[in-house]
Amino acid sequence: MAKVLSHGFEYDLIVIGCGPAGQRAAIQAAKLRKKVAIIDEREFVGGVCVNSGTIPSKSFKEAVLFLSGFRQRSVYGAGYRVKANIEMADLNYRCHRIMQTEVEVIKNQLARNHVEVIPGHAKFLDPHTVEIKSLEEERKLTADKFVVSVGAKPFRPENINFNGTTVFDSDDILKMKELPRTMTVVGGGVIGTEYASMFAALGVAVTIVDARKRLLGFIDEEIIENLQYQMRGIGVTLRLGEEVAKVGERDDGLVLTELKSGKVLVSEVVLFSAGRMSATANLGLEAVGIELGERGKIVVNDDMATSVPHIFAAGDVIGFPALASSSAAQGRLAACRAFSVEYNPGTVPLPYGIYSIPEISMVGMNEEEATKDSIPYEVGVARYKEIARGLILGDENGMLKILFHRETKQVLGVHIIGESATELVHIGQSVIALKGGLQYLLDAVFNYPTLAECYKVAALDGYNKIRAAQ
Amino acid sequence: MAKVLSHGFEYDLIVIGCGPAGQRAAIQAAKLRKKVAIIDEREFVGGVCVNSGTIPSKSFKEAVLFLSGFRQRSVYGAGYRVKANIEMADLNYRCHRIMQTEVEVIKNQLARNHVEVIPGHAKFLDPHTVEIKSLEEERKLTADKFVVSVGAKPFRPENINFNGTTVFDSDDILKMKELPRTMTVVGGGVIGTEYASMFAALGVAVTIVDARKRLLGFIDEEIIENLQYQMRGIGVTLRLGEEVAKVGERDDGLVLTELKSGKVLVSEVVLFSAGRMSATANLGLEAVGIELGERGKIVVNDDMATSVPHIFAAGDVIGFPALASSSAAQGRLAACRAFSVEYNPGTVPLPYGIYSIPEISMVGMNEEEATKDSIPYEVGVARYKEIARGLILGDENGMLKILFHRETKQVLGVHIIGESATELVHIGQSVIALKGGLQYLLDAVFNYPTLAECYKVAALDGYNKIRAAQ
Repeated sequence: MAKVLSHGFEYDLIVIGCGPAGQRAAIQAAKLRKKVAIIDEREFVGGVCVNSGTIPSKSFKEAVLFLSGFRQRSVYGAGYRVKANIEMADLNYRCHRIMQTEVEVIKNQLARNHVEVIPGHAKFLDPHTVEIKSLEEERKLTADKFVVSVGAKPFRPENINFNGTTVFDSDDILKMKELPRTMTVVGGGVIGTEYASMFAALGVAVTIVDARKRLLGFIDEEIIENLQYQMRGIGVTLRLGEEVAKVGERDDGLVLTELKSGKVLVSEVVLFSAGRMSATANLGLEAVGIELGERGKIVVNDDMATSVPHIFAAGDVIGFPALASSSAAQGRLAACRAFSVEYNPGTVPLPYGIYSIPEISMVGMNEEEATKDSIPYEVGVARYKEIARGLILGDENGMLKILFHRETKQVLGVHIIGESATELVHIGQSVIALKGGLQYLLDAVFNYPTLAECYKVAALDGYNKIRAAQ
Repeated sequence: MAKVLSHGFEYDLIVIGCGPAGQRAAIQAAKLRKKVAIIDEREFVGGVCVNSGTIPSKSFKEAVLFLSGFRQRSVYGAGYRVKANIEMADLNYRCHRIMQTEVEVIKNQLARNHVEVIPGHAKFLDPHTVEIKSLEEERKLTADKFVVSVGAKPFRPENINFNGTTVFDSDDILKMKELPRTMTVVGGGVIGTEYASMFAALGVAVTIVDARKRLLGFIDEEIIENLQYQMRGIGVTLRLGEEVAKVGERDDGLVLTELKSGKVLVSEVVLFSAGRMSATANLGLEAVGIELGERGKIVVNDDMATSVPHIFAAGDVIGFPALASSSAAQGRLAACRAFSVEYNPGTVPLPYGIYSIPEISMVGMNEEEATKDSIPYEVGVARYKEIARGLILGDENGMLKILFHRETKQVLGVHIIGESATELVHIGQSVIALKGGLQYLLDAVFNYPTLAECYKVAALDGYNKIRAAQ
């Protein structure tokens, strides 16, 4: 048993779950010179982010873009491929290396900060004690404060037979042995859209089904129109406003996805990605009085505290936006609040990145929100095909759109679709947060040729619109 | 003869030279509702930027990166190639398309803004009159104001026999018929370094000769060390602190580059890129009283005015930094000053981009400058190999370095080497210009995985250093 600290517990902080939220919480507390342990039931640190979520899917995307020659098609022709017969092994090859390295990087960071990593499944016995079970041992640990960051896992309805050979969820889709010729994706959220576009870029005939009338409800409408247009262009069939009645296998091994409208989709594989649920089962949370919401989400206040004040939660386990980036920020905030350290998370707007093909990113308001709030805005647009760097990259459909206040000229939001969108958005993020306004973008000189130039072109476009209207 | 305007001349502004500076000056004046003509002796608009400089070399670089599989080597192994026998035709294929499109984009922009494009060679007859000679005709045109933006061309010493088959300058190197096995690059400035790294990435054995002790004197020393390390890693031999005595051909067609130290470099081709000289000959500039400096540079004041107050100059023709981006900004400023329009170019620091392999970019101060000015600074560093996105891209040597003021925590400079450096630098540029300081970078949430995360990691590194020292 570990030494008991002055407050009567063995640790200042125990973090349960070692994804981006847990890591950041643990490291932040360690930097405050707290004694910290982090518990994870997986063999590897990193959580779903490194082991089956963000990193694998983003590595996969990079391999898809490269091996499919996707970026080169506008230059070398639509039939262009780097490798004629792309196999799953080719696509996953780099993935394993990257995962291994990332796990090493995280382990190093934790070790450098003297965070104790304890493998095993944690369960609350009382509000200050967790029981940890691993193959080797069972032990009890006590702490003054806790951060629960156990993440989420794919939602698996009971009537779907997830067999790991023809019917997959988003955590096991990359374990698929061979690339199929046809695929049905159920769910047009972030994960469904990302995988649908990647497999389509590889030449798989993909059909997406979603009950909503458009993909990615929280993204700007014009950007989604562009995305849907481009996805259709690479062979994706969109079945929007349609609900799935039943998924079943046929004798010949093909999967039938029956829609409530009576349509039947036949495909070699189905990816079912209709949302995620928090991994809060079997942790003893309810027993110590922690309030859970729908799909097992832990309910937290603005300080990331659960209904039990010394137990905090962060990351996917609390729900939207459930991004690695926002989870890390939540983890840091939770640790600071747990130890009452002055920390103002600031008013820097959160960017959203969708790693579909094409990529999408946004920060700040979209047109629908600005209209709802009756903010008088104008829009400036730059198209990649009018920008030297866009031509060089061969991205003919990319665009960057700036929303700004007609009177104050402050930037309200930036919406990007196309190559490097997730990187570029951070220029807009800083201009919004630091209140540079349209004037900053008009004044700044950008490297030539870069995609960043889109900001200048879009700002000029917007500026000319308001000038013309005066 | 065109209609004479109220001031007695046919045009409000005549711009001579249609590169980035000339285009921007012309369009800016047109937006001020001025009557504008732009004269260029080339068949195509765009100047050296589009036709033999920036655009072709950057398109070439993109083709090199792709066809050589350079980005994939850390993942698939050092011997990896997309195409086994890469030929110049493969590399230039995309180049022509991009140049054509870019020329169309510029033509459209000029036409949309009612800028008259006049082909021919312009020469001043008196301070308000130019004579324009083309194959078809000779005419005289008068204007109230002028912007001279004729650019620069490679400096060609008389004792070097530029034959276009084995001895090239930077304007004709891409017209080379076949990829050589060996190449000597004379001059380690921006252009020499860019081409040396590109040909080396293709497997050409490149030797760079420069009289200075390091490449790219204006870039941060640590970044250049990294660059030189990486260039050596892909087979470049650096002969620094060496001067060329003579370049001559041997009977077997190989070129001998004799150094003053007595060394002799034997190679299939030589790229001579020891600076550029302003293209100011034969324009009648001296006759109307315009002062020229060394290598034909036009001398201008802060308002871009030459020694003849109504004649302005902008772009490569005035010398350093001679970047497409800065030239465009100068062109805009010249037009505004010519018509006494209120225009404050602001205090946004100018970024510099070097499109070498790896790419380099910087904005603000470097360590040498901060030390010289006795500014107490600290440095925060992020390495791509510790960043998820860096791992995914396979850039193991990239780094981002932030210089900040130890007391005010304001960001003084950002220096980047690696993938997307020229894009990423604009985040730092806005944080410097808008005075967000280190705190902004600590507060902001970045998309994951992105290279932009380097800013956060570097800011944390810097922050921890000053905290540890307290």
